[in-house]
Amino acid sequence: MKMDTTVVNPEKLYRLSIKLLLAAGASAFESRTVARHLLEANLQGVDSHGILRLFDYLKSVERGEIKTHVSPRIVKNGKSVALVDGRWGFGQTTALFSMRLAIEKASKSGIGSVGVFNCNHVGRLAYYSSLASEKHMIGLVFANADPFVAPWGGRIAVLGTNPLSISIPTASAEPIAIDLSTSVVPEGKVRTAFLKGDRIPEGWIIGPNGETSTNPADLYAPPLPPEGTHLSGALLPLGGYKGYALALAIDAMAGVLTGAGFDGNVTRGNGLMLQAIDVRKFIPVRKFEKQVSELIRKVKEAPKARGFDEILIPGEPESRERKKREKTGIPLTQPILRKLEESSEKYKVDMLGLLK
Amino acid sequence: MKMDTTVVNPEKLYRLSIKLLLAAGASAFESRTVARHLLEANLQGVDSHGILRLFDYLKSVERGEIKTHVSPRIVKNGKSVALVDGRWGFGQTTALFSMRLAIEKASKSGIGSVGVFNCNHVGRLAYYSSLASEKHMIGLVFANADPFVAPWGGRIAVLGTNPLSISIPTASAEPIAIDLSTSVVPEGKVRTAFLKGDRIPEGWIIGPNGETSTNPADLYAPPLPPEGTHLSGALLPLGGYKGYALALAIDAMAGVLTGAGFDGNVTRGNGLMLQAIDVRKFIPVRKFEKQVSELIRKVKEAPKARGFDEILIPGEPESRERKKREKTGIPLTQPILRKLEESSEKYKVDMLGLLK
Repeated sequence: MKMDTTVVNPEKLYRLSIKLLLAAGASAFESRTVARHLLEANLQGVDSHGILRLFDYLKSVERGEIKTHVSPRIVKNGKSVALVDGRWGFGQTTALFSMRLAIEKASKSGIGSVGVFNCNHVGRLAYYSSLASEKHMIGLVFANADPFVAPWGGRIAVLGTNPLSISIPTASAEPIAIDLSTSVVPEGKVRTAFLKGDRIPEGWIIGPNGETSTNPADLYAPPLPPEGTHLSGALLPLGGYKGYALALAIDAMAGVLTGAGFDGNVTRGNGLMLQAIDVRKFIPVRKFEKQVSELIRKVKEAPKARGFDEILIPGEPESRERKKREKTGIPLTQPILRKLEESSEKYKVDMLGLLK
Repeated sequence: MKMDTTVVNPEKLYRLSIKLLLAAGASAFESRTVARHLLEANLQGVDSHGILRLFDYLKSVERGEIKTHVSPRIVKNGKSVALVDGRWGFGQTTALFSMRLAIEKASKSGIGSVGVFNCNHVGRLAYYSSLASEKHMIGLVFANADPFVAPWGGRIAVLGTNPLSISIPTASAEPIAIDLSTSVVPEGKVRTAFLKGDRIPEGWIIGPNGETSTNPADLYAPPLPPEGTHLSGALLPLGGYKGYALALAIDAMAGVLTGAGFDGNVTRGNGLMLQAIDVRKFIPVRKFEKQVSELIRKVKEAPKARGFDEILIPGEPESRERKKREKTGIPLTQPILRKLEESSEKYKVDMLGLLK
């Protein structure tokens, strides 16, 4: 892996992303917001949600699936809740707007809950929940998407991987930052194994014959990856019945309640339900954050299971990687670098010495 | 199992429970509330949270751990949030009061969120979340409790089984009713296997040596069940890292934010965070409920996995059992019947012809 990557400067990568987005037609605000989001994912080591996604976004802008120079619109506005029409602008600007709205409502009434529809792909959910924890609030994000996951007892995808994120402020600068799908694994992991020709562990997928399979090919129908992502089987829900139940609830909250859609009626992007809970409306912020840090300490100090040197807090691996990559830079694979070069050529954008 | 049970009339069981609670010193309202809660659990086939619990409650009243003739007190009151001191009354009356408060707030501002501390054991969470779905709202309940679960990578219990419940209204009388712990299994399942001398499946518990075990004895330290519930090992979190992350978030929300405590500072009972989300503040109730029922239909109609005849919706097994037991009655084991007789004798209460 290391051999195939070139390490690039985060600031240069960020500026190049902005230039490409601007050239594709995005506004300055949209370009900065999306570029920042992608950079943050790369810095935190979540490369599946980093610059890799830029090329899809540029293509979506060309196709008119992502509209530029678009502001989200509040279509229902209550004291503590709102419904936001993303108007098919960038998912990132829509989600950012909506989480800020939830935070504003929470600062007044203690909790704010905002539903979002007509929303393109929003990227990494923890980015939005952490906006709340930065303000000493608890942030929750529920998202639904196209079907990839079978209900418990089924063999066909009906539910999305329907992820959730919870961000909880602590006494340190680092929140507890949870970001997980309600399937056993995201589709990307199966795809990676398929493209490498590897087997996958038992329990990740169910094949078209209705049995679990360790062959990643059993998930897909032609045209196979990397050309397409058509399913013949389905991902399995986390922990069987329980992950299925959570995915179903998230479909109802993020998809049905918001009007974003469900089971293939999510044409693209995500339905979202965002929440901010203002800690100080319950107990003093300092007391809360001190006790959360105490809870973290107790978790980390617990005697370890065989094979573990350390117990990690959700968000800890990402914040460690961030500290490292801020100094050393971001490793990009050759295919991604090639795509950056191609896009730069196409949009007549200077690579800004990215590869020097 | 069937051979060892006696089927009793639900109404008679309910009335006997009330009589016992009254005799122990509970108020008429407390007695009715607790008896109704226990009966509902038995009717729905969740016998682990049914009449079985009454004897612990009676003992707790005797010891003064459950205070009678007590009303919960709102100690913080915001537009959409509140903090409730349960004053160590019955957990059931406290949770009922608090969920009704969340519903009242939601009906005004779109969402209500209520935290609860000094709260005894509340029983089955779906009972409270379903109060919201009866009012065409989405109900959410998060509860924390004494440590039984190891963090991912640990071998000692730091987190509770920290369950959550989500109830979602549908076009029919039956909501989607999710009620699950964030551990792989509740402790009761390991205990049952231990008492029977059975092995348990791989992945349920971790033993004191830091390895997973199929021997239920590896969970416990003396005095062993049924005398005590002292741990030498720990339950494992649902799906490893993900269940651990959820349990941690629930400890922070239901334990720290509410002041109820965490990691052994939950002296007894539960910390609670309850939410009601008013559907009509987002989209028309009829549209929402129709679409949720459509989602349910799609899930149920999905082709089945090998070994499955049917896909069940969360809450469906319980509502079927309820319909059955309402007609046929509630099967009680001989030990429970003996305890009912003992308690009736002790509190000088007529058995009301329960066994006729």
